[in-house]
Amino acid sequence: MIPIICIVGASNSGKTTYLEKLIPALTQRGYRVGVIKHDAHAFEMDHEGKDTWRHRRAGAQTIAISSPTQVASIRTTDHELGLEEIVPRYFWQEDVVITEGFKRSTYPKIEIFRSAIEEKPICEANDNLLAVVTDDPVAIDVPTYSFAQVSAVADLIENRFLKERKKHRVLVTLDGKRLPMNDFVQDFFAGGIQGMLSNLRGWREAGKIDIHISMEDA
Amino acid sequence: MIPIICIVGASNSGKTTYLEKLIPALTQRGYRVGVIKHDAHAFEMDHEGKDTWRHRRAGAQTIAISSPTQVASIRTTDHELGLEEIVPRYFWQEDVVITEGFKRSTYPKIEIFRSAIEEKPICEANDNLLAVVTDDPVAIDVPTYSFAQVSAVADLIENRFLKERKKHRVLVTLDGKRLPMNDFVQDFFAGGIQGMLSNLRGWREAGKIDIHISMEDA
Repeated sequence: MIPIICIVGASNSGKTTYLEKLIPALTQRGYRVGVIKHDAHAFEMDHEGKDTWRHRRAGAQTIAISSPTQVASIRTTDHELGLEEIVPRYFWQEDVVITEGFKRSTYPKIEIFRSAIEEKPICEANDNLLAVVTDDPVAIDVPTYSFAQVSAVADLIENRFLKERKKHRVLVTLDGKRLPMNDFVQDFFAGGIQGMLSNLRGWREAGKIDIHISMEDA
Repeated sequence: MIPIICIVGASNSGKTTYLEKLIPALTQRGYRVGVIKHDAHAFEMDHEGKDTWRHRRAGAQTIAISSPTQVASIRTTDHELGLEEIVPRYFWQEDVVITEGFKRSTYPKIEIFRSAIEEKPICEANDNLLAVVTDDPVAIDVPTYSFAQVSAVADLIENRFLKERKKHRVLVTLDGKRLPMNDFVQDFFAGGIQGMLSNLRGWREAGKIDIHISMEDA
């Protein structure tokens, strides 16, 4: 799966503003960046009276809207999707996904900390905390970076997550739930599938292979 | 792939209003409905100053926003995605996808026609036109339904597309491009994959199997 790094911090600690600096630092290095924002409330992405709003009110579970330059979608869910559900579905060309929020996830985190807002960081070192970004003194056993050291944080992300890519990365989900596979099994499985597909007309070498199988009661 | 039916017609023919009736007619029969709207312009789904807008302006290619009841995404694209790219990506739990627009697609179409707006339908029978919805006389060699006959149109969709489901439906994409497979190959391939997976710990029978393989230069 695409590497995920969570930018966490108290409300008003400046997560969005920091992302506005970190995203370009990564895109300038040639990486395609995706962002996931966590919203505790029911956000309003479509607006009353718009066609997409009318479709949803009429009962459409998912709507998408497509134009020459962008595509958007809104899905009604019966539970809050985890990052492991969101990332493989919505991010397929990105090299890295940065989240704003998701402090309770188990993915690697970078915390934005301001002593004017909170007494101490909301994460501890053993919460998979990679670093703290702060201009204040902080007693925590992870590296700290000032708000100005954006490039150093981009280095950290690049070195830890973007340079050592595996040759095959295989994600199999069964009804949306991940089937665990170790590296050996992933390689074996990817090789087997490519062997099967390579006998078909239309086959060509590809960077990404996606397969969807629906079993239905006939 | 999920069946796709395009609701087409001239501007102001009443496509959105008709969808507001057709969607509930299908959901009441127990089908989960997805909708895709075509927008010739660059629609505004996020709004200036909002966090998601700031992330995109900073260079994020794709953003998603997640809450307990919904998940939304916006992706910047370098070309207009076709329905065959949009549907497998954004619709994975729906039984049928209805589009508003996409009159030039090759998928089955139902045209909304009003003689007050246009002289004759914008589609011809051989454009994969299933039916015309109109209260006016129209000379075209496909069945016509009045605007009030919504249930009859839902019957048509149900009988043509939702009752005869294949046992396996396999979609393989290579870098987003579909690899064609006939029914025999789909069954053979689906069986082979299930055979490989069923030897793994964690395997269980599933309604949907999704596999993503990324080949990367190490």
